[in-house]
Amino acid sequence: GYKNLRQNDTGLNGALEQPAIRALLPDLKGLRILDMGCGFGDFARYARSSGAASVTGLDVSESMIAEAKLLTDDSQIDYLCSSIEEIAFPPESFDLVVSSMALHYVDDYASIVQRVSAYLPIEGRFIFSVEHPVCTANPVGWTTDADGHPVSWPLDNYQKEGVRHTKWFVDGVVKFHRTAETYVTTLLRAGFRLDHFGEPTPLPEFLSERPALSMNLRRPPILLLAATKRAMRD
Amino acid sequence: GYKNLRQNDTGLNGALEQPAIRALLPDLKGLRILDMGCGFGDFARYARSSGAASVTGLDVSESMIAEAKLLTDDSQIDYLCSSIEEIAFPPESFDLVVSSMALHYVDDYASIVQRVSAYLPIEGRFIFSVEHPVCTANPVGWTTDADGHPVSWPLDNYQKEGVRHTKWFVDGVVKFHRTAETYVTTLLRAGFRLDHFGEPTPLPEFLSERPALSMNLRRPPILLLAATKRAMRD
Repeated sequence: GYKNLRQNDTGLNGALEQPAIRALLPDLKGLRILDMGCGFGDFARYARSSGAASVTGLDVSESMIAEAKLLTDDSQIDYLCSSIEEIAFPPESFDLVVSSMALHYVDDYASIVQRVSAYLPIEGRFIFSVEHPVCTANPVGWTTDADGHPVSWPLDNYQKEGVRHTKWFVDGVVKFHRTAETYVTTLLRAGFRLDHFGEPTPLPEFLSERPALSMNLRRPPILLLAATKRAMRD
Repeated sequence: GYKNLRQNDTGLNGALEQPAIRALLPDLKGLRILDMGCGFGDFARYARSSGAASVTGLDVSESMIAEAKLLTDDSQIDYLCSSIEEIAFPPESFDLVVSSMALHYVDDYASIVQRVSAYLPIEGRFIFSVEHPVCTANPVGWTTDADGHPVSWPLDNYQKEGVRHTKWFVDGVVKFHRTAETYVTTLLRAGFRLDHFGEPTPLPEFLSERPALSMNLRRPPILLLAATKRAMRD
């Protein structure tokens, strides 16, 4: 169930989300990294192979954490099975916090941002992707014509933040819609400087291989934000 | 023609755009202000009544500049009839540059941002609103049902930046669609710090007076950005 859900939900991973997030990463050498929503640990292992000092991977799914552990042989990678909301780390425990396609499952985004700020030292970085607000606002899929061809993406209820039930996924898993304004201004108010506001597109080589990916040029599937914790006086 | 166009295009002015932009303004006392797309000079007069040292209002429409001059009796307000692209001011001529619903008529946004940066001193501010990218992407209006009721806002062609022809306006006036990523990252790359990313909603009192405004809760009509010129070393 959940494994399928995540795979379904992150189908754009290889062609779009991971290349875009990796292009934003600082030099990982020596960094202590927290990955919120680590899934099978792909990013944790990538970060360590790029010189990260340590990685803590967090995921709410027991089966994903179990599989991540099977796939990993590295004493500097820790996997913890917990929701992002139910765990806390000491101040300045990490130099970089990343999160791929997880925070739209979290209700209290502002509280997560506050905590991430506490986990980081000044100049520590927070880089994350979420399902784009134009997708979560009205998650009913493309409007199609009589032949089933997508006509447009039906945007609606944009300013109505909160729970979204997407029928075709497993029962009990809900998403939370937030506006782009909320995603960004919550970071700014918590003392972050915005470094990047990304609406990544599929890499050209994937577009020619899988033409269906061009749908993601018609509406942005992902919002990718990068921010740095500012000094108080900054 | 153009007067109608602007009024049509800025129908949300009083209920949404102007309150939102004014809420973001710093104390105007003593500031030298440039207003790009000043229309009838409403903002110029407001700024002077709030203590601005001087205001330069720029508009491409001769008739609007003529009317602005008729409506204004203030030696510290200058109105210039020019496109935003075809004028230049000396470095650090202004402390604040504002622009209401004008930059989506400009082709080379990056060049405008570069120039605005040059017009400002370190810590000078740039605050502007544009038609929201989800509106300019596919400007065909609401999808309606058989009874003519709006069903959803048909988003499409989001990643295809460039000219948009909106048939129902006067001939020859075109808009330029840009993604939110382009609006924001162009500022960041030009050395601005982002202070605000706004998708303003109609004020409650206007919503109860004019229920039709609630359409603007279904998709954001306006993007409002505020930024500050950073020191090089910042």
